[in-house]
Order: sequence, then structure tokens, then C-alpha cells
Amino acid sequence: MSKRTHHCGEITKQQAGEEVKLVGWVQRRRDLGQVIFLDIRDRSGLVQVVCSPDINEQALHQADRVRNEYMISIKGIVVERDEKAVNAKIATGEIEIHVHECELLNASKPLPFQIEANTDASEDVRLKYRYLDLRRPDMQEAFKLRHRITKTVRDFLDGDGFLEIETPMLTKSTPEGARDYLVPSRVHHGEFYALPQSPQIFKQLLMVSGFEKYFQIVRCFRDEDLRADRQPEFTQIDIEASFLETEDVLAMTEKLMKKLMLDTHGLELEGSFERMTYEDAMNRYGSDKPDTRFGMELVDLTTVLQDTEFKVFKQAIESKGIIKGLNLVGGASKLSRKEIDALTDFVKPFGAKGLAWLKVEEDGLKGPIAKFFNSEQSETLLEHMHATPGDLLFFGADKKQVVFDSLGALRLKFGKEFDLIDSSKFNFLWVVDFPLVEYDEQARRYVALHHPFTRPKKEDLHLLQSNPDDVRAEAYDLVLNGYELGGGSQRIYERELQEKMFETLGFTKEQANEEFGFLLEAFEYGTPPHGGIALGLDRIVMLLAQKTNLREVIAFPKTASASDLMTSAPGAVSLEQLIDLNLSVLGKRG
Amino acid sequence: MSKRTHHCGEITKQQAGEEVKLVGWVQRRRDLGQVIFLDIRDRSGLVQVVCSPDINEQALHQADRVRNEYMISIKGIVVERDEKAVNAKIATGEIEIHVHECELLNASKPLPFQIEANTDASEDVRLKYRYLDLRRPDMQEAFKLRHRITKTVRDFLDGDGFLEIETPMLTKSTPEGARDYLVPSRVHHGEFYALPQSPQIFKQLLMVSGFEKYFQIVRCFRDEDLRADRQPEFTQIDIEASFLETEDVLAMTEKLMKKLMLDTHGLELEGSFERMTYEDAMNRYGSDKPDTRFGMELVDLTTVLQDTEFKVFKQAIESKGIIKGLNLVGGASKLSRKEIDALTDFVKPFGAKGLAWLKVEEDGLKGPIAKFFNSEQSETLLEHMHATPGDLLFFGADKKQVVFDSLGALRLKFGKEFDLIDSSKFNFLWVVDFPLVEYDEQARRYVALHHPFTRPKKEDLHLLQSNPDDVRAEAYDLVLNGYELGGGSQRIYERELQEKMFETLGFTKEQANEEFGFLLEAFEYGTPPHGGIALGLDRIVMLLAQKTNLREVIAFPKTASASDLMTSAPGAVSLEQLIDLNLSVLGKRG
Repeated sequence: MSKRTHHCGEITKQQAGEEVKLVGWVQRRRDLGQVIFLDIRDRSGLVQVVCSPDINEQALHQADRVRNEYMISIKGIVVERDEKAVNAKIATGEIEIHVHECELLNASKPLPFQIEANTDASEDVRLKYRYLDLRRPDMQEAFKLRHRITKTVRDFLDGDGFLEIETPMLTKSTPEGARDYLVPSRVHHGEFYALPQSPQIFKQLLMVSGFEKYFQIVRCFRDEDLRADRQPEFTQIDIEASFLETEDVLAMTEKLMKKLMLDTHGLELEGSFERMTYEDAMNRYGSDKPDTRFGMELVDLTTVLQDTEFKVFKQAIESKGIIKGLNLVGGASKLSRKEIDALTDFVKPFGAKGLAWLKVEEDGLKGPIAKFFNSEQSETLLEHMHATPGDLLFFGADKKQVVFDSLGALRLKFGKEFDLIDSSKFNFLWVVDFPLVEYDEQARRYVALHHPFTRPKKEDLHLLQSNPDDVRAEAYDLVLNGYELGGGSQRIYERELQEKMFETLGFTKEQANEEFGFLLEAFEYGTPPHGGIALGLDRIVMLLAQKTNLREVIAFPKTASASDLMTSAPGAVSLEQLIDLNLSVLGKRG
Repeated sequence: MSKRTHHCGEITKQQAGEEVKLVGWVQRRRDLGQVIFLDIRDRSGLVQVVCSPDINEQALHQADRVRNEYMISIKGIVVERDEKAVNAKIATGEIEIHVHECELLNASKPLPFQIEANTDASEDVRLKYRYLDLRRPDMQEAFKLRHRITKTVRDFLDGDGFLEIETPMLTKSTPEGARDYLVPSRVHHGEFYALPQSPQIFKQLLMVSGFEKYFQIVRCFRDEDLRADRQPEFTQIDIEASFLETEDVLAMTEKLMKKLMLDTHGLELEGSFERMTYEDAMNRYGSDKPDTRFGMELVDLTTVLQDTEFKVFKQAIESKGIIKGLNLVGGASKLSRKEIDALTDFVKPFGAKGLAWLKVEEDGLKGPIAKFFNSEQSETLLEHMHATPGDLLFFGADKKQVVFDSLGALRLKFGKEFDLIDSSKFNFLWVVDFPLVEYDEQARRYVALHHPFTRPKKEDLHLLQSNPDDVRAEAYDLVLNGYELGGGSQRIYERELQEKMFETLGFTKEQANEEFGFLLEAFEYGTPPHGGIALGLDRIVMLLAQKTNLREVIAFPKTASASDLMTSAPGAVSLEQLIDLNLSVLGKRG
């Protein structure tokens, strides 16, 4: 087989008159009796070729046998098309190729779906035939983009003095690793490795080692229930540096994201990214990753409604909860009573017991709870919620988290449904001043909001033992359009402080030593101050490709039940393999 | 803390008179009573700083408290040294820094070993305190080199139109995957994922998908007994391309390796890499990855000695074995009788029952088996083995593989022990024309020498079913100085041929369909011809760093029993975790 001389999508009028050789897939075949037109596709694009008895009888005969997705090789002469035959939709639309040799390299069965940008095939079929799905032009573009983004990140970090250093995949499970994937050891009886949820400890040890600036684009694993924007394995841009403080990390990350926006969208972002405290984000958007492309902020009504007669509100206040309102401007005519009632089911999964609402009409508030508001209260409410006739008001009254979660989700739902979001915007946002720990009612102890190695803010250090709830972390999350792109923090680098932190999290001294003794000891050998950030590559690619599902930017993704529909992973293994690992599978559940 | 203004190793006379701020570790502290000299180290190198009462009393007081490996920050003025005080050994040897501020950032306990290029600490101690071991300058250099090599490879492949595409780590175990690491699924009862031994199938599917040129620098896993040059997890430069034939892949790989040699050693390799058939490599060097930096080739004596009276040789010939000789030139005076006898133990692990030998003296052959050679036979032997007085001859007579393995290993042993190897040489070599399959006596079936997707050579295709032993593969291994850097092949891309291959390997049609049905089906949709290569990154870095152990170029390696001595992985996990996975560990063996 002689080599191709060109790629399909790159042939222009420049080559008119030349002989070219191409290889590719038959995208389309039009048989006009004496003449057969084929669109041939390779990675670079499409070109139209023509087989006719005037050009070459033998080639026409071959073309007669090919069907969609046959792999063929052709030789022919590039010919300019008549003006009226020009196809402006494709890059090669000004020419066609008159074929005098056509070789069939491999045949194709009829396809389960067509290789086109928009497919109506179900996702299950697409995942089963992933190798065909990936032929579709928008998938090809997504992976070219992913490659370009990854390359840009590496070039940027390399240029900034960061060294890419690989860390192990076969690591140790820790008590904080409830969602670790485990790997049984064959050599060490009954023992397991864990796949890393992040290279956190290793990257900190690299700082102890004096590498100063480390990064890695690295696979991480988390065995948890999957959602549309989660995968059991995901790829992280993992960055850590000694002597860089919060402001340095933020500035570097902004520079990197701006470079990506410029390279992939030609967009020059100006100024620094907006910043918001965790407290503000929760209060205003009910979320620590607010989508700031639209307003519709949550309004605090706890004080305003402190004298309310409405039992639900009253109880919320009495049990130290909060009341928040959400104004769907002009919503009164957008939602029917039935649709409004259905929203109660929407907020229930967040723990809300119901969803109070009011319509604003010319002559006052209407709706089931309107009667609890006297005219003075009504006016104050309207004023606080910037409400005018035609608006529809929703209320959450419960524990803080329930109100945040339910109204935050409702806000996003309305934003999408009523088209309030400008999808051309890229709203980057730093969320800062996270709480260091939160109390876990089930575990009956404090757990780290980020991880146990996050540094408390200097000014809150004195509260670590007396009042952990009030300690803020030297941590930061990067948010884009309502998605968390990643996050990071300054780290603890002193043994004493790390021990205090473990103590706050309910570790005994023995537990801390058993699990993290090597890290505590490492901190005793002149460890430099350090911090970093980890960014989700999959999410970055998804958002820059303007997709809404991670599976569109992962070549061989898993389904929501962590299966691979193509290879049928996971699967059974042989008894020999299990015996070799000293394992037995417990009886099947009924 | 204000920022450092410079890196330690970069300060020269250019900065004389300037104030600089540095951070780093105390490499050395010399206390001359009134004056304290500190060598401060960061990633860039060392610089000497001076604290004295003339410069700053406070700083001297601080310097008095520091010890080796304390992390400090200093401010001072760059001063040119007196000519006689210049230290030519370090880049900053012409200056020193007069310190007027010294801040202690973190203290250090006394170290288990010194942070120096050559350490006499045991490897176990080095692995336990890996974070300190990695501070040693040669380790720092090794990982800078690794970063540079990785970057060069990526830039090269990107420039050549290859897209880096990630493939899954949680994949399916196959019957060929006896050495798979397994990962139990929490969701799918009793089922397992397997960590990939290579992304072989996925990269082929990416070719089916039309990506044409794929690469990935990717972690792979193999659960096998470990040797000095193996690790349970290793990193592979994985390359696959459609429409590239063997010659294209070889040419591209040579170009890449030449670029690496130039970038890392300033060495311009000329001409194409040497090529050798598998058969030649085995016959001449007893190895499919010969170290061609020295001669001492194996000499075939099967025909020469066909009339031998020596029973061992006679039996070997009668049972269709071979006889090979090895001439240790001048060896008669190098090895004592006792040392020669001890070599029998050396060859035993390779299956050899003994090791016959002869000394060549002025008056003929000497040694236990000399009596079996009449003068005519002696002369023929000396002629064939290019032997002259003073030489020491060794013989292997057994099944082919036993002779190859034992004499091949002996040759390497002599090469190293008697300093026959020019360690400045980089001998790249292609080994080609591998057998496609070999018969596995234990499994009583043929197994693929590379893997079941390797394409048979076109001219041997007709032998696939009748005479599999004689079929050569369209496969190639790249060897450097006796190490296999990697290998690849052209792949099967037709369902029918792939099915024949599985049949040759003893798969029933059902087994083939169950395990690889999706691949067989993929081949039916216009799959392009494709092939590729996978190179071991760890080995490349090891050889270019001129190290002899992979652990010197892997940041956190495992020991020979696949343990991490620092984190104590693998380890026990909680009963809850096991229950969650529906697993139980079988009773401890006694």
C-alpha cells in the first residue's frame, strides 16, 4: 500500500490538477446510475470524490461495492468544481476528486446509528458502540480540544518552573477513605492497596523533599454514587508549591485559566476573577459553587418575619433555623397552580418539608399563606424581595442547610427553565474562607470540609480546640458557571498543628500515628510552608467544549452504575484468581 | 513573609552589592566562634551565607540556633569573595551573602542520613524516609531529567499530529490477564475491575474510531514477582497509529529517541538503528534483548561436535538440543578452578544441569572434559571459537532455550565482571521477526509471544493453522544496552483473521466471543490497518540517567515484595469496607 499524499479535509483549489492519494471512511455514497459520488472522511474532515466511466471504469466498479463506513483508499486528480456545485459548508467544497483508482481496505456492516454531529441514538447504544460514537465529528472535536487543553496546561506549568512528578496508584487506604477503591494484594495475605482519591499526601511529601513546584495530570478514583457530573475515575490537574501563598496560587491559576480561554475560545478575560466568601455564597445563592451568570439571589427574611404568625416560619425561627425567600420575577403567569404544587416534590430530597409561596397581585399577596401577612408585613416583604405585581415568591424556612440546598436548587432550576442564563458567559469565581470543619451528626464528630491537611486561617488558629465551628480554612475553590472546577488550600506543615487538627477530628494519638505517622514525622525535618490547588480536567474540558455531561469528554466513560457497556466491566473473575488473592465472595443477596 | 528575590543556585557576581532574599534548607553549618557560615540549598543549588557580629548581631544569634536541614529565610547583601576563598565546585562559588536578617521557618530533627549525592544509607532506610532521600542532589537531578524527557516526548508527538487520549484504569480482566491487579466492585456483587497491563484494546478501538494517531503516557500494572528492573506499576509511552506500517513506526521511534539523546546528552546519533532478527539475537547473544556494547558472541557447535564422544553433548544432540560455546578471552588466568566450579550454580536456575568448560593452553585443551577431544576435534573447536592459549571456553548443551538462557546470562555476567562494556555507549537495536506464538508446555496450548492482537507476517499467514511455530509476527522490540525499552507490532484488523488467531491460541468460538466479542464486532465496521509501539518510560529515564535500578527514577517506588516502606501499603482494611464489597479474606496460612 503506498502512502496517502494528503488528508481529506485539507485539499483546496491549490491542489487543482494534482494527483492525490487519500484514505478514509465513506461518509456518504450517492449513486446517480453512471456516476457515483462518495464523501470520504478522515480525522481532518471530508472531501467529495467522483467515480464515473469517463474517469475510470475499474474505479467505478469498486465504488459500486462500497457502503457507508467502508474504509477505502483512492487515487485521483483534484478538480475545481463548477461555481454552482460549490459546497460552502465544507472546507473542501470548492473541489472534488476524479478517481482513477479505488481500493477497498475494509468493509463495514450497516451501522447501529449514523456518524453525524447530532445523533438520536440512545446513550446506552452510543456507549456500547463507543468506537463508532467517537467517529462523530463533535466527539472528534471534543478530544482534539481535550488534547489541546492538556498540552496548554503542561506547557504553562513547565514554563512556570513546575516539574511533573508521578505518584503511585497503589497506595494505602486511610480511615478518611470511606470511598476508596481497594486492590487486594497477592503477596501480602488479606491486605489491600487503595487507588488514590487524590495524590494529596504524596504531593505534600514532594514539598518536604524540596521539589518546590510540582504538578501532575493524574487519574484519581472515588467509589461513590454517581451523578451526571461524576465518574468513578477522573483526571486532576494537581499542583503544589512551596513558598507560594494563597494570593500566589490564585494569581497563577487565573493566569492559567485565562491562557486556556484565549487558546480555546479566543476570549481575553480582563481583570481578576471575582471573589466571594463561603458565607456570602451560601447566603446569596444557597450554594458554595454559585452560578453567577444570573441574579435571582436568595433574600434573608429571618429578621423581617420574626413576628410572623405562620406556624412553619415561627417554628423555623424558634429552632434556630432561617427563613429565605426567592423571587421569580414575573413568575405568577409562568407557573400554574399545579406546577407550583409539584415543586414541593422537587425540594423534598433536600430535606424541606414543604415549599411556601405567594403570588404578588395588584391588590396584594395571594395564595394559601397570604392570610398570615398583615398589610404592614406584606409591604416589608415586598420591599425586601424587590417584588412587584406579577412576581411569584417562594420561601424556605428550616435548618440553614435545608434552606440553602432547596432554594439554591430551585434558583438553578428556574434559571435554566426560564432561560435566565446567558450561556455565552464564562463566570469565573473564587469562593474563599470556607469553614475548616463541619460537625457530622452521624459520625458524631467533626470532619474536615476539604481534608485534614488544610491550614486554618492564622487569625482563627486560637479557636481550633475551643470552637472548631468558627475556624475558617486557608482554602479556596474555583467555580465556573456553577461548576466547581477545583479547589485548594495552604497546608499544615508543622507536626504540632497537624496533631491538633487530628485531635479536633476525633483521632486518638495512636490512630493519628498509625495512619499518618510517616507524614507527622516528615514534618519534623524542615518542611517548607506549602499549598496548592487541584483542578478537574474533565470538568474544564466539558465546560470549554460547552457540553453538559462528562461522558462527552471522556473517551471510554462509565455509566451511572460504574459499568462499561462496551467491555462489560466489571465482570466475574476465575476461582483461581480469587484463591490467589485469598478472597471469597460472600453469598449473593436474594 | 515577604517573597524570595532569587533562587540560591542562581546568584553570581552580577548581583554583587544587591540585597537578596532567599529561602532554603541548611545544607551545612560551620561555626567559627564569632562567625557562622551556612550553606543554603534550594531546588536550584547551593549558596554560602555569612553571619557575623560585624554584619548583624541578631542574625548571628538566629544562625546560632539553626542546624542541618532547618528551613530558613535570609536577607543579605551579595559580596564577591576574595580570590583565594573562591569555591570552583559550586556555581555560586565566587560570592557569598552577608546576612542581616535570618528567620527560622521550620526546624529539623537530626537526620537518619546526610543529604548528599552519595549516601551509604541502606535502601530500606532510604525508602522509609523517601521524602529525605529525594532531597539528595542526584535524586533531584533524576526527576528534573524525567520531567524533561516526558516533556520532550509529548512535544515531539504533539508536533507529529498525535493526540493524547486517556483510557480507563478500571477495565475488564481477561483470560490472558493472569497477572491482573483486581478491583472489587461495590455496586456489582462479586464482580471485579482489572487495572490495565496496557491500554492495548482501547488504543486499537481509538483507531477504529478514526483518531488515526493516538498516544498516552500512561500508568500500567502487572502483579508479578518483581525484579530489579520491574515495578508493579510502571509508566508507558503508548503510541498507536492508523496507516503507519512497520517502517513508519520504526522511523518515527528512532527520530524520537534521537531527539531524546540530543536533548539529554547532547549526543547526535547518526544513521538508522541496527536491526537483528529474533533468531539471530538468540543464536548470537542467547537473548532477545542483546547488549551489543561488547562481543563475546555464542558460537554454534552442534554440527562441529556431532561426532563427540562426550555423553552430555551426545545426549543433547540426540534429543534435538543444541551445543553452544562461549570464549572468555584470556579467561584462563582470570578465574580459579573454584570460581569456575561455582559458575555451575549460576547457570542452574536457567535449567542447565551443568557447565562444561575447557582451558586453552599452549599444549592443547585442559580440563575435566579435555579427554573427549582428539587433536582434530580440538583444532576445529579452537578455530570455530577463535580461541588461543590463555582463553577459557564454556559450553552449553541442552534444549535450545536452556542453552540460550544460561550462556546468554553468563556472557552478561562476564561482560560486567571483566569490564568488557563501554558504558559511554548507547547501543540502540531493533529486534524483529519474532515468532508469533510459542507452545506453553504447562498450559498445553500455544500462547502469544507478544499479545493475541499481533499481526502475523503476510508471507507466513498461510501457516497460522497448520504450523503456528513457524509463523513470524509483524512485531519489533527496541533494545538499548541490553534492556528492552519497548516493543510493538502491526495489529490484526480483520474479524476473520482475529478469530483464526484466537483459535490458534486454543480459544473456543464462545470464549473468544465472550471475552473479546466487542473487539471482533468493532473490526466489522471499516477498521483501518493500524499498529504501534509502547516504550517503558521508567526504563528510558533509568538508562538516560545512567542508573541501574528503576527505584532511582520513580518518586515513590515499591520494594521487591510490592510494599511501600514509607506509607506501609498495602495494609489491612476495616471489616465494614470488606462487607461493603461482599468479600471475606480466607484464613491466614500457617
